[in-house]
Amino acid sequence: MKKIFVKYGFTQEQSKLITDTLIDADLRGIESHGIQRLKMYDHKVNAGNIIVGNQAGQVIDGPVVTVVDGHHGMGQLVSFDAMNEAIEKASKTGVAISVARNSNHFGAAGYYARLASQHGLVGVAMTNTNPITIPTHAKDPFLGSNPIAFAFPAKPNDLVFDAATSIVSYGKIEIIKRRQKKIPGQWAINGFGKVDNDPNNIIAGLTQKPRVGGILPIGGVGEINSGYKGYGISLIVEILTAVLAGGTLSADQQRPGKQGISHFFMAIDPTAFGDAEVIQSSLVEMMERIRNLSSADGEAVIVPGDKEIINYHKNLSEGIPVEESTLSEIRQIATRLDVSVEL
Amino acid sequence: MKKIFVKYGFTQEQSKLITDTLIDADLRGIESHGIQRLKMYDHKVNAGNIIVGNQAGQVIDGPVVTVVDGHHGMGQLVSFDAMNEAIEKASKTGVAISVARNSNHFGAAGYYARLASQHGLVGVAMTNTNPITIPTHAKDPFLGSNPIAFAFPAKPNDLVFDAATSIVSYGKIEIIKRRQKKIPGQWAINGFGKVDNDPNNIIAGLTQKPRVGGILPIGGVGEINSGYKGYGISLIVEILTAVLAGGTLSADQQRPGKQGISHFFMAIDPTAFGDAEVIQSSLVEMMERIRNLSSADGEAVIVPGDKEIINYHKNLSEGIPVEESTLSEIRQIATRLDVSVEL
Repeated sequence: MKKIFVKYGFTQEQSKLITDTLIDADLRGIESHGIQRLKMYDHKVNAGNIIVGNQAGQVIDGPVVTVVDGHHGMGQLVSFDAMNEAIEKASKTGVAISVARNSNHFGAAGYYARLASQHGLVGVAMTNTNPITIPTHAKDPFLGSNPIAFAFPAKPNDLVFDAATSIVSYGKIEIIKRRQKKIPGQWAINGFGKVDNDPNNIIAGLTQKPRVGGILPIGGVGEINSGYKGYGISLIVEILTAVLAGGTLSADQQRPGKQGISHFFMAIDPTAFGDAEVIQSSLVEMMERIRNLSSADGEAVIVPGDKEIINYHKNLSEGIPVEESTLSEIRQIATRLDVSVEL
Repeated sequence: MKKIFVKYGFTQEQSKLITDTLIDADLRGIESHGIQRLKMYDHKVNAGNIIVGNQAGQVIDGPVVTVVDGHHGMGQLVSFDAMNEAIEKASKTGVAISVARNSNHFGAAGYYARLASQHGLVGVAMTNTNPITIPTHAKDPFLGSNPIAFAFPAKPNDLVFDAATSIVSYGKIEIIKRRQKKIPGQWAINGFGKVDNDPNNIIAGLTQKPRVGGILPIGGVGEINSGYKGYGISLIVEILTAVLAGGTLSADQQRPGKQGISHFFMAIDPTAFGDAEVIQSSLVEMMERIRNLSSADGEAVIVPGDKEIINYHKNLSEGIPVEESTLSEIRQIATRLDVSVEL
């Protein structure tokens, strides 16, 4: 992976960071944001949506607030610097926010939230994306998958929440299609505005221009199970990213010349709120109490991040399982770029 | 209402503010957080959970961070001051956070988020509550209804999102019981861990000690429609309130001597991120585009806050509809306190 990114023109150091974000996602079992995304990045580099040599620049560099223009560089590079800026400032002031516009897909949001928790700070990361999520009662997508990641330093592992504010990510629908299965829940509506369990119909709608149908917000269709709450939370992410950063809405990513993703990063230093060790102990104790709650259905009660930690240790020792189709895509790209790979 | 709060021992000014938060909720159609809550406040004042004369004190008063000990005073008074502190600090630094512990029920979260948007700032308000929400796969409640409110200055009206992170609030289940209806969606599980549409069973579980069953997080039961995302978001609210403020978890509110609600308030000044007028224009334009999206089901596509604004103008001109049982409760309390009311 690293050799491929070097071939695009990224420096050794940049290529190492980008590769790390992808392998890290795969190690944690977040396959949708792992090396299978190389094909998308390859496409974006070739199409000129990701401009390899471009450096992000700080438009505003205040004591608490940072505004970054990504200049259409690689999302991971823009985001790593922007989050580190927030971490550095929050360590002095208690709280700091960085927003970025004209960036690109940054991989898994949790990666950046964890940068903060690794420094003993609370981390928040959000991004807008391509349009896939339909507002309550609407027929077509307007919002992105608009993930929220939240990390809080804890022991033995940090608490890490990382989730799209759509019921599922687009990648999950793709995986169901690849496996020729039906969608198991009420996840998406087709171009006729109806809930549809056939992944082919959903993907057909989201790959035509303009896009029709889409993935439902958390809470599902209409108002019966409070889908308007998931819609509202997705909209908040859109506002804190694209609107606050002065960037492009998810809805407009398909317009010629408008492409550019926006991010929001926040770091909070617990030491500004009291004794950080006491705060952390109360969190760790709460996490243990939740894990020990009685089960309603025989499934274990867990805390956000637990699954990813299990995957991480398993994959680190046994290796990361990769789909044959992903390997084949990587081989093709490597061959085209004259990179030798052992796959 | 104001006369009643004065009788409890609050000052004229305090009583006016508390009353304003309740009438404001009723005007916006948020009946669950309006004057029907007097009975609960009356109970808490009499039980000594709300200590009338107590003043909140600032434990930490930094340039960006404020930590408040509510000293078990009235939640509205603690919260009004804490949010105003965040607004004042954010106007200087761009971002500020206030957290409060040992407070009480503060009414509707949106009230405090709107204090910020009325000043041209973005406002965020969260609170933990009594335990009603069950973590994914658990059988009994651990988290509160844990609402998130978010307000962004806009024209002609601010964008205001205000929602519990449980599918519905406890108050909605109570209203369905009072009207002898069935729960229409998959909202709650009973003491046997099963989804149950009879509000009597849900309320029976949540009023026994210890509480059993409870309301599901946004996304519903299990993992099929991503209930773990709603659970995670509710948990984030619990962490940013009770854990960060050094307060009492929702899960522990029933323990003798442990009662005390925690809040989180954040204000963000758009002028710290660029031209605030340009930012606001882009928000207003987006809101209009969303309202004009095609409908999938004949229902209008709206933006968070739209319904409340319609209610506000309707109730302001036609009067607030109040349940007879609520009027009867207020009459009883007024009579006991020797307050003359015209109801």
